[in-house]
Amino acid sequence: MTTVYTVDSIPGDGIGREVVPAAIRCIDEVARIEGFEVTWRERDWGSDRYLADGAMMPADGIDQLADGDGIFLGAVGQPGIPDHVTLWGLLIPIRRSFMQYVNLRPVRLLPGVEARVSGAEKLDAVVVRENVEGEYSEIGGRAYDGRPEGMAIQQSVFTHAGVSRVAEFAADLAVRRSGRLISATKSNGILHAMPFWDEVVEETVSRSGTVELESVLIDALAARVVLRPDSIDVIVASNLFGDILSDLLAAVAGSIGVAPSANLNPPREHPSMFEPVHGSAPDIAGKGIANPVGQMWAGALMLEHLGEEQAAKRLVIAFEAALADGIRTADLAGTASTLDFTEAVIERLRSAA
Amino acid sequence: MTTVYTVDSIPGDGIGREVVPAAIRCIDEVARIEGFEVTWRERDWGSDRYLADGAMMPADGIDQLADGDGIFLGAVGQPGIPDHVTLWGLLIPIRRSFMQYVNLRPVRLLPGVEARVSGAEKLDAVVVRENVEGEYSEIGGRAYDGRPEGMAIQQSVFTHAGVSRVAEFAADLAVRRSGRLISATKSNGILHAMPFWDEVVEETVSRSGTVELESVLIDALAARVVLRPDSIDVIVASNLFGDILSDLLAAVAGSIGVAPSANLNPPREHPSMFEPVHGSAPDIAGKGIANPVGQMWAGALMLEHLGEEQAAKRLVIAFEAALADGIRTADLAGTASTLDFTEAVIERLRSAA
Ligand SMILES: CC(C)[C@H](C(=O)O)[C@@H](O)C(=O)O
Ligand SMILES: CC(C)[C@H](C(=O)O)[C@@H](O)C(=O)O
Repeated sequence: MTTVYTVDSIPGDGIGREVVPAAIRCIDEVARIEGFEVTWRERDWGSDRYLADGAMMPADGIDQLADGDGIFLGAVGQPGIPDHVTLWGLLIPIRRSFMQYVNLRPVRLLPGVEARVSGAEKLDAVVVRENVEGEYSEIGGRAYDGRPEGMAIQQSVFTHAGVSRVAEFAADLAVRRSGRLISATKSNGILHAMPFWDEVVEETVSRSGTVELESVLIDALAARVVLRPDSIDVIVASNLFGDILSDLLAAVAGSIGVAPSANLNPPREHPSMFEPVHGSAPDIAGKGIANPVGQMWAGALMLEHLGEEQAAKRLVIAFEAALADGIRTADLAGTASTLDFTEAVIERLRSAA
Repeated sequence: MTTVYTVDSIPGDGIGREVVPAAIRCIDEVARIEGFEVTWRERDWGSDRYLADGAMMPADGIDQLADGDGIFLGAVGQPGIPDHVTLWGLLIPIRRSFMQYVNLRPVRLLPGVEARVSGAEKLDAVVVRENVEGEYSEIGGRAYDGRPEGMAIQQSVFTHAGVSRVAEFAADLAVRRSGRLISATKSNGILHAMPFWDEVVEETVSRSGTVELESVLIDALAARVVLRPDSIDVIVASNLFGDILSDLLAAVAGSIGVAPSANLNPPREHPSMFEPVHGSAPDIAGKGIANPVGQMWAGALMLEHLGEEQAAKRLVIAFEAALADGIRTADLAGTASTLDFTEAVIERLRSAA
């Protein structure tokens, strides 16, 4: 008997089409070693489809993904098409339809990557980002558009259910790590939403007993990431703050090209989605020089989520070994192509098998 | 004939009470040298007053400030009193009543201060932050409070007038500097407010002809501050994004203890307010070790605003000289007290006079 997982792969746009195939080769290799299989359902969804058909994905796209075991996304976004079209036509609907309310973003200094700030040499943090509500809201609009009296109104919505479930996930994670949890807030400026966030986070975390909770204002926290990165372990943050903090932490750890992100539906009622933090990078797309580590690491998070922990570990060890051996793409000041790096990872997977 | 300026000083809480008197001594000294006078109206507004009387400032506080030439604020905030009480009882009402719609935050690597990231050695940037609208809004509230169905709603309000005037200020500043302007956005996530921000900024900046405008997503921009700080000159940002970016830039430049902020009413219909970026720092308050540079630099911005450019320059040169000579407070890994540093600045003012 062989376990077979069905995973939808959506390479998307730009370098997504280069790093997704690279990561898939590595995942197939660890699957072979560990004795399971992945059936990939490749979806040609993205900006080209939008230009041809007027939609990033088919009308029943969400339904097509619903029975899979996971979604493996590259990147979406293309010059000439507004970001809110590409993203709200594909990425955001998937996050929301499948109630992927946790966006998990580990940040670690990888071997052979140079930290940008001192104190980040031992950086090993996780951002637990709320992923379906908050500041990213469709509610709002304009009045007097195009006139001097014009204005735009944007509503943020924070629910007790939404904040408490992400806080609970973060507290559980903190228990398994350092026992410390930082909550990003701005209760001194964002007067309705953020004091509510603080209350629900406190109430939820206090139920989990042992976690030491620290609420830090987002401005001070951004500064702290730069000044004392080693003081950070698990952060729980709203949709917007988590977005900013995870890019910032990735930069402090030397590159946003290596950072992964897992969009999780923790009750496992729907498929979860795994993607790198970086975007479609149109400036380097098509050159074969993109760093596939973010996508590979996202693949490892997916394997972990599927219960294939050994396979996940193998994959991480292999790309870390390749980096440690000095095989690095241009963004990490190396000369390896996407293909060179991928071959190096596969070689290391095989020799460790 | 002597010019006499009337300035309201509000030391406020914590280290505000140590750094404001320090900066005032230096301002009085440059005034003497340059031949003008400052009449200080000291206001004992702040948290102690709140604890005694239930209000951070008198009911007619705003009126009392209205006829002055400027407001010199230390910091507000005290443990045990919620931040939204201390801030929305003093700082925010002043910003809004006096239509201080620009919050100007220069960030520069000062002599003797160590940059936190490579590439920041030549950092010399200015954040032009929108200061009276946007994400900091009183509009919103809760439903089903305290129940599992509970939620908080927060409205952001961006007006054409509000965005265009701050963009115009930033564009004018960019013209006098590098000619480059970065606008912080999140139009791919904050769907109503941020595309509106982008449109109004573009429209406004394009009118000023020569400015090269670049719109950068806030997550990518936060990363860029760390990865390529030297690529940043003038940034225009919303209230929240400007708050985050200015702390972040200050951290990259080595310390948030030295960063100043000018809350400007550019039409000069109302007094402007000058304050350091740092807060009341209760942990070190009362010890006499606070770094007064942020407050002194805020004083220099005030002198500039008053038209006393020579005096402003003298003051900046003097505190930079003290820093360059190795006189530094504990936050900059020095051993000088607030008083030591202040004496050193006054000495240098005198010997340069
Ligand atoms: C205290 C707080 C409301 C304030 C702000 O966010 O505006 C502060 O952080 C600042 O930057 O002046
Ligand atoms: C593309 C954008 C909408 C998205 C976000 O902000 O969520 C991205 O920045 C991310 O972090 O996944």
